[in-house]
Amino acid sequence: MPDKNNLWKVNTNKFDNEKESIMRNGNLYQISNGYMGYRGTLDEFGRDELVGITVAGIFDKVGDEWREPVNAPNGGYTIIKVDGKKISALETDIVKHEQTLDITNATFERKTVFKEGSKKINISSKRFLSIDKPNLGAIEYSFSTDKDAKIVVETGIDYNIWDLSGKHLVNEKASKKGNVLLYDSVTNELKKQVCVAELTDFKGLKEEHVIKSNYNLRKFSINAEAGKTYKLTKNFAVFKDGDTPGNLIDAAVKTVEEAKSAGFSGCLKVHDELWKKRWEQCDVIIEGDDEAQLALRYSIFQLLIVAPVKGSANSIPARALSGQVYKGAIFWDTEMFMFPFFVYTYPEVAVELLRYRIQTLDGARRKAKTEGPGFRGAYYAWESQESGDDACTYFNIGDPHTGRLLRTHFRDKQVHISGDIAIAMWEYFKLTGDDSLLLEGGAEVILECARFYYSYAYFKKDKNRYEILDVIGPDEYHERVNNNAFTNKVAKVTFEIALEVVNYFKEKHPDALKKLLEKIDIAHEIPQFEEAYKLLYVPQPDPETKVIEQFDTYYKLEEVSVEEVKKRTVHPNEYLGAGQGVAVPTKVIKQADVIMMLNLFKDRFPVDIKKANWEYYEPRTEHGSSLSACAYALVAADVGKIDWAYKYFLKTARLDIEAKYKVYVGTIFMGGSHPAANGGAWMAAIFGFGGVKANKEKVTINPRLYSKWKKLSFNLSFKQDSFAVNIDKKKVVVVANKNNADSRAFSVANKELSCKPGETIEIKY
Amino acid sequence: MPDKNNLWKVNTNKFDNEKESIMRNGNLYQISNGYMGYRGTLDEFGRDELVGITVAGIFDKVGDEWREPVNAPNGGYTIIKVDGKKISALETDIVKHEQTLDITNATFERKTVFKEGSKKINISSKRFLSIDKPNLGAIEYSFSTDKDAKIVVETGIDYNIWDLSGKHLVNEKASKKGNVLLYDSVTNELKKQVCVAELTDFKGLKEEHVIKSNYNLRKFSINAEAGKTYKLTKNFAVFKDGDTPGNLIDAAVKTVEEAKSAGFSGCLKVHDELWKKRWEQCDVIIEGDDEAQLALRYSIFQLLIVAPVKGSANSIPARALSGQVYKGAIFWDTEMFMFPFFVYTYPEVAVELLRYRIQTLDGARRKAKTEGPGFRGAYYAWESQESGDDACTYFNIGDPHTGRLLRTHFRDKQVHISGDIAIAMWEYFKLTGDDSLLLEGGAEVILECARFYYSYAYFKKDKNRYEILDVIGPDEYHERVNNNAFTNKVAKVTFEIALEVVNYFKEKHPDALKKLLEKIDIAHEIPQFEEAYKLLYVPQPDPETKVIEQFDTYYKLEEVSVEEVKKRTVHPNEYLGAGQGVAVPTKVIKQADVIMMLNLFKDRFPVDIKKANWEYYEPRTEHGSSLSACAYALVAADVGKIDWAYKYFLKTARLDIEAKYKVYVGTIFMGGSHPAANGGAWMAAIFGFGGVKANKEKVTINPRLYSKWKKLSFNLSFKQDSFAVNIDKKKVVVVANKNNADSRAFSVANKELSCKPGETIEIKY
Repeated sequence: MPDKNNLWKVNTNKFDNEKESIMRNGNLYQISNGYMGYRGTLDEFGRDELVGITVAGIFDKVGDEWREPVNAPNGGYTIIKVDGKKISALETDIVKHEQTLDITNATFERKTVFKEGSKKINISSKRFLSIDKPNLGAIEYSFSTDKDAKIVVETGIDYNIWDLSGKHLVNEKASKKGNVLLYDSVTNELKKQVCVAELTDFKGLKEEHVIKSNYNLRKFSINAEAGKTYKLTKNFAVFKDGDTPGNLIDAAVKTVEEAKSAGFSGCLKVHDELWKKRWEQCDVIIEGDDEAQLALRYSIFQLLIVAPVKGSANSIPARALSGQVYKGAIFWDTEMFMFPFFVYTYPEVAVELLRYRIQTLDGARRKAKTEGPGFRGAYYAWESQESGDDACTYFNIGDPHTGRLLRTHFRDKQVHISGDIAIAMWEYFKLTGDDSLLLEGGAEVILECARFYYSYAYFKKDKNRYEILDVIGPDEYHERVNNNAFTNKVAKVTFEIALEVVNYFKEKHPDALKKLLEKIDIAHEIPQFEEAYKLLYVPQPDPETKVIEQFDTYYKLEEVSVEEVKKRTVHPNEYLGAGQGVAVPTKVIKQADVIMMLNLFKDRFPVDIKKANWEYYEPRTEHGSSLSACAYALVAADVGKIDWAYKYFLKTARLDIEAKYKVYVGTIFMGGSHPAANGGAWMAAIFGFGGVKANKEKVTINPRLYSKWKKLSFNLSFKQDSFAVNIDKKKVVVVANKNNADSRAFSVANKELSCKPGETIEIKY
Repeated sequence: MPDKNNLWKVNTNKFDNEKESIMRNGNLYQISNGYMGYRGTLDEFGRDELVGITVAGIFDKVGDEWREPVNAPNGGYTIIKVDGKKISALETDIVKHEQTLDITNATFERKTVFKEGSKKINISSKRFLSIDKPNLGAIEYSFSTDKDAKIVVETGIDYNIWDLSGKHLVNEKASKKGNVLLYDSVTNELKKQVCVAELTDFKGLKEEHVIKSNYNLRKFSINAEAGKTYKLTKNFAVFKDGDTPGNLIDAAVKTVEEAKSAGFSGCLKVHDELWKKRWEQCDVIIEGDDEAQLALRYSIFQLLIVAPVKGSANSIPARALSGQVYKGAIFWDTEMFMFPFFVYTYPEVAVELLRYRIQTLDGARRKAKTEGPGFRGAYYAWESQESGDDACTYFNIGDPHTGRLLRTHFRDKQVHISGDIAIAMWEYFKLTGDDSLLLEGGAEVILECARFYYSYAYFKKDKNRYEILDVIGPDEYHERVNNNAFTNKVAKVTFEIALEVVNYFKEKHPDALKKLLEKIDIAHEIPQFEEAYKLLYVPQPDPETKVIEQFDTYYKLEEVSVEEVKKRTVHPNEYLGAGQGVAVPTKVIKQADVIMMLNLFKDRFPVDIKKANWEYYEPRTEHGSSLSACAYALVAADVGKIDWAYKYFLKTARLDIEAKYKVYVGTIFMGGSHPAANGGAWMAAIFGFGGVKANKEKVTINPRLYSKWKKLSFNLSFKQDSFAVNIDKKKVVVVANKNNADSRAFSVANKELSCKPGETIEIKY
């Protein structure tokens, strides 16, 4: 149970030097500023403890290994030696240890009391990655001993980098320029420059410069007095190709020098203020349930720390910036599970996520061409990196029985990805009213996605319908299925959106439309989209059971419990899918699939259908993906199964803060944080218990609070206006920001209302 | 090298008591008469030596085990004991052993000299299964000792039956009625009666009746004199439900009693005469190459022994009647690899093979319905038993790594089977001119096959073509592929044939057509067949390389040698396909696929295309199926690669006579004989080196003898007329039987000729 007075902190008084505990804490205590992530490791840690500074938007490939994001050297490295002995949590006796992640402002603090011989040594440090200056990291490090001691401090840049798949930085140069330690390199594959500068302020103490074994260090030797605290401040800056038009090294030096001038507290102050604003905009308050409050807040925090830097057109990888797992790639996770949080509360970040997809449209076009034959339009990467080419390999899950990689069809058959993106693109326009993104490439993305589906679809003449064949839906245990309900629905809606975009442009931007249609030579295909929209088959609920068959022939699969299926494995890390996995011939599914569809298109299905399907699929779902629980939470809330909704909400919301997730699939390491689950937790709270749903016309709020919850408060952004919403057991209060541009329509507890700028509306329910 | 003077015999002077050798000899020395097969085991052998009397057309299933043919008890069992010691090749010292299979008349003979203590014992026996009376088996058994000895003979029915998948015969009753030993039982699943009668003639010697441990025996005790030969004659009869309208036991008793009256030599004489006629009609003579001569003759022999009994409407299982392997099921092997031999030389048997498909049409309709959704028409079983329901399971190859069965798509995706049957049905009509089979269900089969393909095909609107998606072609290592050239071509030709049948009936049998169209309500679908025939896509040769891509995206697969692929296995019996097998991601194919198409439709492709594809696919073929080599032989001959043709011809022709084939796939035992390869050997000789090909109009002969061959002589049946063909290095001589009904057109060495009844034509080339 969390400390009632401490619902803004994650902390522990224990230190466990087991490798797995260090790995999990590295995720749990990570800080990030969207530009880079810094794993929650201690100052004295190195590569073996999975220290990682993962930089967004830069990727590298070594040999035949997987392409993955680049980790920068650790400019935050510091150790001390007391009377010649290195002090480290890994080796030295620990008298007391505390480490804390402050959620208010993404600072990580550690305080450790060590015992070395007869002496006690206190080490404290605090660090943050600036959201004001995204290249900058700042650390305040202090120590004291209870007896006089000879202390050596070594601090600087550790470039023994932890990489999953090969050494990415080459042509490495370590140097010192003036007082600044420098590291310079280029990536192995594309020769992109990556450099680090470090500047330590240790009150004018004399230092020695040492370069050894991939450490670029400054060394201070001190005759420390008992009881006296020695404090140093470190700043480091990471720069990569494209960050600035000028010289990267100069920029890095300038960054750390300016930070030194501003001082640790000076930098922190600006950082704090920006974080305060973020939380004012994005926090959700749950009264009456501290556990849920902390878990949800931590989830929101996880999303905020990886919100891409404004103008970067970066997106958020499936394991955020917690390392190189999943190749630092962007999946459908972003649009389907993270995007809703941003578009409803922080639309300026939602823009970046979508700009990323616009920027990678050519990659999606290339994928369509190469995955063909005959595919056209935009087939977005299943695992997308900076160019939009697919980082997903055809062979990717290690088979523990043969040691070979298993062929999966994630890359070539999970076609719903394109529609997921088109839907998010359109959703952004609908909820913000901002059509600039559509004009700046968004409409092109949507039309190219529709074009892709048309090229993928087949017509069944004797049934007079289009079908989508040979796909993987969200449930990845069943590969290469026909007419997956989720996928077909997504494709159908993509055609619908494409036609809506054309109509909207026809009315509002006829010139832009003309230009676009010509640019991609698509005018003659619009009638195809119309026909496909009309004739594309989507599996319908059975008239009696109301259940929608997940795909053609799903009902023929073996009926067997999740437990029984798991019992059939012969190796603990055996993957249950990939064609010959034990779940494949059964009805057991990896994650929400029909339920995902019923959530995504919740307005289009009546409650009885959603209920029947929830009850049918829930016991058949293994939840082998972190994306599953939130969909079950959302549909449970939607159909009034509030206790079930809460169970699945907590499962989602606690995933990262509990850090008990599985870290191996087959032989592949996949430890890291789960921003999609974090986004799912927010959705479960706001869409699920808050009953919030916005469309082009209005915001609907039909609350169904969990019994324990006294109050649920949050902000919403709609049509670029802001609203504070407070829901308690009896009423909903909506307060419109006085700076809002216009009155906005609300439907609260089935009452239709309008809310003017500055107005407060209160509706009993 | 075979004995020049002995090109009608298979024999050995060795006896190897290794289990595998006994198993392989069981296949090699088997005899059969189409009604039942009797494995080539010794009189004293039992279940552990895989004695098997496999009965055609009766199947049984026990529990969840595979459904398989029923083995009858062994009415041919005999042992002798000398001074109380059992004499058996498994236990007793062997001084000399010889066993011979006489190909002229399918008799099996063994002569063994044993040494037991100081005594030498000679045992001889000879047996055959009557083709005059298919329920009957006859054995002549004799023995002598070199010293006086007390001998006990035990002979009768051994019903310790060797079954692969469970005990099929239940309610077993052993008895003696008059002098006849009886065994009666019913099958486990369908309660079909199976009974055996046995009658021994031992010159009035007194016998004792003993029933013990599943033996129903008569026991003779003899004080044998040194040097005197004792001879007994055994007859046994196997009857199964449906063999006769009356009482089965009575029929069995009558059969053995009549056989006893006729005597061994009397029965053998009739049998011999029938065999003589068969050989007159079906033998092929190769002069100058004894090895090829014997291997080919043995291959033809293998086909003749399993030719279904007239009127049985049975077909030939993939492992003939050599046991229960492959569930005794009928595969495409029959129509594509065995049928040509029969239709060209022995059309009265070809009729039975096709009648079997007519009789199982309802099973094919049921399969279409259950494999659906939306499949209509006739989707023939991949592994067909008596009802035509599919005996192929979805899981069928044991994975040595996990011990689980692998999911393959042989059953649900190998859709070419229906077209293979339609093509054979039409071929029979074209070559014999006999339309009775079409009228009696053949036309219905063809139309239902076309209907099935239409229901299976999809239309690709943006390419204005039909496609056949998600199939397995002959190359089973690549499952679930799109637009497999072989399959699409077969489907297209099926539409073509369906239209031809309708046109033919319109002209010749308008009433029958009307009735048929009404019966299966298909008139409105004929325009669909016309459109599909016109617009069905078949992969075409690349204009530059002339190679036809085996299926969409085949070219994208890894280019790697067969040897390299095999090196990637980690278990010796690992299957190379089934989704995750090592061949799957590579261009390495299991067997002829495009080449199979180029052979089946050889008239429709020019030589340069056939050559280019042979050269492309040959090094990429693993020949993991016994069906592969003959296709490579045939196309090699077709394009003038005579040495290659010979190499593959020998591989095919020697397969069963060498008996070195692999007997395990994954963990599944699949030892048995290979009638498809036998048929392939005949095709390679006659179609390949003889250059024979008939169509509706004429017989074409364009010889290309292998260098070593001086002469190739064989008979052909065309339009129900008979022709003897003699090809030597310089000329082709065709002799028309004087009883022929009409002149028939020939094209010999590109000369167009007509051959009148009784006429001899001689063409130099």
